[in-house]
Amino acid sequence: MGFEPYRSPSTGRPVRAVLFDTFGTVVDWRTGVAREVATFAAAHGAALDAHAFADRWRALYQPAMDAIRSGQRSFTKLDTLHRENLDRALRHCGIEPALVPGETLEELNKSWHRLPPWPDSVDGLATICRHYIVGPLSNGNTSLLLDMARNAGLPWHVIIGSDMTGTYKPLPEAYLRTAGFLDLEPGEVMLAAAHNNDLRAAREAGLATAFIARPTEHGPGQVADLAPESDWDLVASSIPELARMLGS
Amino acid sequence: MGFEPYRSPSTGRPVRAVLFDTFGTVVDWRTGVAREVATFAAAHGAALDAHAFADRWRALYQPAMDAIRSGQRSFTKLDTLHRENLDRALRHCGIEPALVPGETLEELNKSWHRLPPWPDSVDGLATICRHYIVGPLSNGNTSLLLDMARNAGLPWHVIIGSDMTGTYKPLPEAYLRTAGFLDLEPGEVMLAAAHNNDLRAAREAGLATAFIARPTEHGPGQVADLAPESDWDLVASSIPELARMLGS
Repeated sequence: MGFEPYRSPSTGRPVRAVLFDTFGTVVDWRTGVAREVATFAAAHGAALDAHAFADRWRALYQPAMDAIRSGQRSFTKLDTLHRENLDRALRHCGIEPALVPGETLEELNKSWHRLPPWPDSVDGLATICRHYIVGPLSNGNTSLLLDMARNAGLPWHVIIGSDMTGTYKPLPEAYLRTAGFLDLEPGEVMLAAAHNNDLRAAREAGLATAFIARPTEHGPGQVADLAPESDWDLVASSIPELARMLGS
Repeated sequence: MGFEPYRSPSTGRPVRAVLFDTFGTVVDWRTGVAREVATFAAAHGAALDAHAFADRWRALYQPAMDAIRSGQRSFTKLDTLHRENLDRALRHCGIEPALVPGETLEELNKSWHRLPPWPDSVDGLATICRHYIVGPLSNGNTSLLLDMARNAGLPWHVIIGSDMTGTYKPLPEAYLRTAGFLDLEPGEVMLAAAHNNDLRAAREAGLATAFIARPTEHGPGQVADLAPESDWDLVASSIPELARMLGS
C-alpha cells in the first residue's frame, strides 16, 4: 500500500523490524513481581516489603549475567538465574529458601513470566505491527517471553529469546544474532528501550534506536534513565507515540 | 477456565504445545511455487511446466538436507539450500541461471516465503491457539517462517526456525531442542503433520502425534501419505477437525 518505512538517519536504512527491550520498557516488572511477592509473604506469614524485595531481586539480575558475559560461566538461561537470585534475596531477608516448598519458589520465580504490560504497550505494539516486524529483544529466555506475551496479550510476530542467541545484552552478538535470524542488516532493525545503556550498545552494533521514557520503572524515586542521554533516532514517551513517529 | 488439555495416550502427558509441520501440512507449497514459476516463465519467455518445475525443485529438498544431517556439510539454512536447488532445477530445464538477473532468482526463491495456506489452516490454528501454544516445527529458517506467517496470516505464538535448533527433521534434536526452547517435556508437545515419516521421528523423540491428511499436496496423482501408517494419537482431515479433537 505504498507505506514508506521510517528511515533511520544514523543507519541510513529503512527500518524493517522494531524490537523491544521488555523488562521495564514493555512490562512493569516491579509492580508485577511485588504483587506476587506480597501474595507469597501473606501465605507464608513472612514480613516482607514486597516492592523492596522486587528491587533487591532485580538488583541481582545484571551481576548474574556478568558472569556469563565475561565467559566465567557458560550460558545459563534467565529463569535459572532468577531462581538462584530468588534464594539470595530470600536469605537476605532472613528467609531460608530450603524451608519453603520447592514448587512455591518455582511458582514465585514464574512471576517474571506474568508481568503486566504498561497501559499503553498492547495498543502501541498492535499499531506498529501493521507495518513492521515486531518482537522482543530481551535477555529473557524464549519460554519466559512466550508466557509473558500470552499473559499480557503482546502481539509479537516472532520471539527470539536470549537462549536462541546464546548470549546476553549488551554484548554485540545479542543484537547481531537477532538481526541474523530475521535475515536483516543490523541497520534495518530498531531497538526500542527505556535504558540508555541498552541503546548505546545497540547503536554500536549498528542498529537504529528509539528511547521510550518509563520514569516509574523503578518506582516513585527513580533517578536513572529519566531522559535520553544521546541523540537516539527517536525519543517517545509511550509506544503509541513511537508508533506515530514510525508512521504506523 | 478449567480447560482440560488433551492427554496423549502414547506419552501419558497433557499436551501444552501443538506444533505444525508447515510445507504441505499448513501451506500448499506446490500451488504457491508453481504460481510464481509461471510468472517468472512468462516474464522470461521460458517454456516451463510450472507444476512440474515446482515438483522438481521440491524433489531436491531432502537430498540437500541429507548432506547436513549426515554431517558432511555444516548447518546451512533452508533459504540457501532452496537457492542452490533453484539453479539445479533451472539447468535441468535448459535454463542457465547465470543468464538470469540475480535479483530475479532471489525473488523467485522467496516464493517459499509466500506460500498460500490450505483453506482451513488459518481458522483451525486460531481455534487451537485459544488453549495451546501454537507454532511451526518446520525445516524452514526463521525469516522464511516469519514471512510465511505474515503473508498467510498464520497466528503462531512462537516461531522456532531450524536455524535456531541448528538441525533438520527428522533428526531427533530438531524435535527435542524445540521442546527445550519451550521449556516443555517432549511428551507435552504434539507434532501435527501430513507426513508419516515426520510423525515417526517425532514419536521416537517422545512427542505426541497427529496426522492431518493432505491428499493433494503433491497434486492430483499423489500416492504417498494418503492415510495414516501408524496409530498416531490423533488423525484428522483438517486443522479445524484437529482443533475439535483437542477440545479447543
